[in-house]
Amino acid sequence: MDFAEYFPIWDKLTPEEQKKLSDSALPRKVKKGTLLHGGSEDCQGLLLVSSGQLRAYIVSEEGREITLYRLFERDLCLLSASCIMQNIQFEVMIEAEKDSELFVVPPRVYKGLQEESAAVANYTGQVMAGRFSEVMWLLEQIMWKSFDKRLAEFLLNETLLEGTDSLKITHEAIGNHLGTAREVVTRMLRYFQSEEMVKLSRGTVEVTDAARLRELCGR
Amino acid sequence: MDFAEYFPIWDKLTPEEQKKLSDSALPRKVKKGTLLHGGSEDCQGLLLVSSGQLRAYIVSEEGREITLYRLFERDLCLLSASCIMQNIQFEVMIEAEKDSELFVVPPRVYKGLQEESAAVANYTGQVMAGRFSEVMWLLEQIMWKSFDKRLAEFLLNETLLEGTDSLKITHEAIGNHLGTAREVVTRMLRYFQSEEMVKLSRGTVEVTDAARLRELCGR
Repeated sequence: MDFAEYFPIWDKLTPEEQKKLSDSALPRKVKKGTLLHGGSEDCQGLLLVSSGQLRAYIVSEEGREITLYRLFERDLCLLSASCIMQNIQFEVMIEAEKDSELFVVPPRVYKGLQEESAAVANYTGQVMAGRFSEVMWLLEQIMWKSFDKRLAEFLLNETLLEGTDSLKITHEAIGNHLGTAREVVTRMLRYFQSEEMVKLSRGTVEVTDAARLRELCGR
Repeated sequence: MDFAEYFPIWDKLTPEEQKKLSDSALPRKVKKGTLLHGGSEDCQGLLLVSSGQLRAYIVSEEGREITLYRLFERDLCLLSASCIMQNIQFEVMIEAEKDSELFVVPPRVYKGLQEESAAVANYTGQVMAGRFSEVMWLLEQIMWKSFDKRLAEFLLNETLLEGTDSLKITHEAIGNHLGTAREVVTRMLRYFQSEEMVKLSRGTVEVTDAARLRELCGR
């Protein structure tokens, strides 16, 4: 595993900057389910994903969750180094959603690079803008889209991410992605089943009519 | 009106960069209600507020609105130059909420500075992170807070911004700030009135018991 291959603006760095980064970045393997970042007090470093899938989410005081976005190969997670990200004033959790391989870049090393290199600073801003855009998308979904459309969108997206129509996922986990109570998910899934768009069995949601789900969410 | 006084990182610029900015920044006066930016196709430039108040909001296909955040003196509006903000993938509207004075910085000038100066690039990232944080706050409010608390929070905030307990605002305008239908606002305001926290008259909401509103939203 070579850091240079995964860091998107490697070619824009000076040889010294490249050395600083590759000397300090530590490869790490994590199992599915590992909590990688648990709020703004936690500042382990930036995570560069070399394989697998991470999930960023928030949690209410009552323990309700909602997924903000996912990170995939070559994505850089800034918020796990929130101590060096000025003006970030919210708490976010990051977990490995699949077995994953990462590089961990120490916050101080990255901060130094960011201060001296306009390329690194601009890249960081672009990554921030990308995550900001994903949260704006989510906000618009929540504000303007009915729950049946959001659930249809989620199921279709999961079949693509998992590469199968038969999703091993509980109603509670779906609720945690969408920020909704389990009961609400169950009710809507039963309606989808009665319309023959999905088939439910213990711990599994099988998408049986993707075309109609797509139609439902206006794709 | 002097640009140098309002641009927060003026001292971190080289004399050439300072000259480029102050030569190109155009002062502009706008009346309350002026639409300054109308979506991502629109790329007039960055807006630096020297006085007044701007509002950033989104609009649904059906014309429903929700306020994302406000901009005040010395705040820099990046999204009105969305063409130079890579990875910003959402549409936002910016309007003058009070008579305002601004500097408009041409997108190309700012882009040039950002590419050569790590200070400008980092500052831009920080501004972005600040707006991102405001939207995260909003998302959390919408997800986890009941509407009575959001409305109480809004009314208290408005009395501070306007410097008066007697707010000249329609129920529809409140709905547009909070992303809610007018009827829902009216119903909740009537409840607040029955609890003697506000007094309603035509076009006016008067906060009569700020302490109880504060208690309601857990401040």
